[in-house]
Amino acid sequence: MSKYWSQIVRELEPYVPGEQPKNQHFIKLNTNENPYPPSPRVIAAIKAATDSSLRRYPDPNCDDLKHSIAKYHDLDHDQVFVGNGSDEVLALAFISFFKQQEPILFPDITYSFYIVYCRFFEIACERIPLTGDFDISLSDYERPNGGIIFANPNAPTGKLLTLDEIEALLKQNRDSVVIVDEAYIDFGGESAVALIGDFPNLLVIHTLSKSRSLAGLRVGAAMGPVELIDGLERAKNSFNSYPLDRLALVGAVEALRDSEYFRSTCKKVIQTREWTAAELTKLSFEMVPSTANFIFVKHPRIPAETLFSQLREQNILVRYFDKPRINEFLRVTIGTDEDMQTFVQALSRMVN
Amino acid sequence: MSKYWSQIVRELEPYVPGEQPKNQHFIKLNTNENPYPPSPRVIAAIKAATDSSLRRYPDPNCDDLKHSIAKYHDLDHDQVFVGNGSDEVLALAFISFFKQQEPILFPDITYSFYIVYCRFFEIACERIPLTGDFDISLSDYERPNGGIIFANPNAPTGKLLTLDEIEALLKQNRDSVVIVDEAYIDFGGESAVALIGDFPNLLVIHTLSKSRSLAGLRVGAAMGPVELIDGLERAKNSFNSYPLDRLALVGAVEALRDSEYFRSTCKKVIQTREWTAAELTKLSFEMVPSTANFIFVKHPRIPAETLFSQLREQNILVRYFDKPRINEFLRVTIGTDEDMQTFVQALSRMVN
Repeated sequence: MSKYWSQIVRELEPYVPGEQPKNQHFIKLNTNENPYPPSPRVIAAIKAATDSSLRRYPDPNCDDLKHSIAKYHDLDHDQVFVGNGSDEVLALAFISFFKQQEPILFPDITYSFYIVYCRFFEIACERIPLTGDFDISLSDYERPNGGIIFANPNAPTGKLLTLDEIEALLKQNRDSVVIVDEAYIDFGGESAVALIGDFPNLLVIHTLSKSRSLAGLRVGAAMGPVELIDGLERAKNSFNSYPLDRLALVGAVEALRDSEYFRSTCKKVIQTREWTAAELTKLSFEMVPSTANFIFVKHPRIPAETLFSQLREQNILVRYFDKPRINEFLRVTIGTDEDMQTFVQALSRMVN
Repeated sequence: MSKYWSQIVRELEPYVPGEQPKNQHFIKLNTNENPYPPSPRVIAAIKAATDSSLRRYPDPNCDDLKHSIAKYHDLDHDQVFVGNGSDEVLALAFISFFKQQEPILFPDITYSFYIVYCRFFEIACERIPLTGDFDISLSDYERPNGGIIFANPNAPTGKLLTLDEIEALLKQNRDSVVIVDEAYIDFGGESAVALIGDFPNLLVIHTLSKSRSLAGLRVGAAMGPVELIDGLERAKNSFNSYPLDRLALVGAVEALRDSEYFRSTCKKVIQTREWTAAELTKLSFEMVPSTANFIFVKHPRIPAETLFSQLREQNILVRYFDKPRINEFLRVTIGTDEDMQTFVQALSRMVN
């Protein structure tokens, strides 16, 4: 604590990202990274762009990337906003739309950055408990609010809401912005981007960190009606005019173009997830049905924290959250087939 | 305007960056980019790092880069903060230290993003007029304040305060944070980093966009006492955990290492600046003595706006600010010798 800090900074409780170990001998199943590398076309495009042009500022409007995203989702260019990872996009969305009289609503168990943004921007919030089965009960959101946000599929549970459920919520909630954070949507869910034309208050957030294998490049996007995108642009140009560097822009554009590679790696992750889930069921693990690139599992007998530590000793990193309601679970990112075989074997020794 | 926008976003007046034309036939003297490419070692390091590791998140703490910057400036690692360009670093510094009861102080003519941050974070400010000669009169800052910020050398004037002057200010002003924004310091000024050990309230901001030829990579830094750096880390981890991507981190580290290249390109820019200033003096231009990589010039007869338009017609871009007190001036980035010869020849035809 310093006497020079503003009151806001004194009261922050910053987000704590998953461990990024410096040495490479871990099987890293703790931060939901994709086990497959980015498309070879992405690597080639970045290398080709690594030249003297780095002395120049990037395009502050990121037009090429917006066009690529718009084309992929069949949207207009001005329905797309991009930022330095979906975390920055979310932060700007919070100040642009959620700083209102009424509190915003989000699940008690969800991406833990949401509450951090609320403190940072002094936004009131109410956390709505998930059901005992970790379901988002949308009728609980039918109350006055300054905005609604949820991750779909949710994190760290992996549970999905259907498009019909989201549409029903939007029909009930027309006076505040609804943000659907689809970081994991490509691993089995249906995107709410399809609803953008019908609702002036819907914003959908994507990231290239998971399904596009580009966590290291920091690219996120928001898609929604032009008026909401305009609001985000105003906020962005009051914070940082050039959030995406030249190489991130080039790499992201190429990642969007290589749909074939993208689909094949997503398919592999889904297959490995289903195999892993089946194997863990054989070992008596209980789990939430996942449509993400991770699974959320507990063992009926051995505490999650114990398993977490024992796995770490065997150089396998998973994520354990020491928080009410979820401290019996491990969140396990889906790795390669080989990673998951090693993981299942390790667990097998621990529980038998 | 949208009914979904927060009040803050309605009232913003976003920053407007200099034009970044899509086609390449301009001599681009409008955004203070370095005319020389980044060090070849930077290019090589980035290419070498462009591989499958992009699927993984970058180091959220940016330790390697902090070590490199600390080493260059003879600081400790924990006296350095890094961000997505100095614009992001400045934004986080504003919320961390400047959101106070008293208004912050900065010059009426300076980097135009400062007032934008104040609106974004709802920070009260007073703009202190420069003298008629565009000097910062430091005695004007001896009043209760929530913080003080100035660019040194100042923008868009290029005028420098000496280290003695800054030290005198710091001795007078111990209860609020003083930020010295040294984006252009490497082109002839003396850095206030030397004073960090003596003042617990001094923060110095640097960027790799100008003197390190890396505007396209988006890397900025703050240097100061550990307590101030801690405050910035808290804010950063409440906004975006991974603001620097893997390639930016690698490139920035290598740029810091190649001091020889850095010194030689800075020297060339300074030489070209002095040549250009001498030539423009021959053409009767008046100018502010510059220690930056740009000059701020006016012609006694021909309006700056006219010169700006005529230069643009000849594919030479410079910066014109249509604002009180400075609308008689052009801000001209120092390019290569060849760029500046073309520029001087073009002006010569216009004024003769």
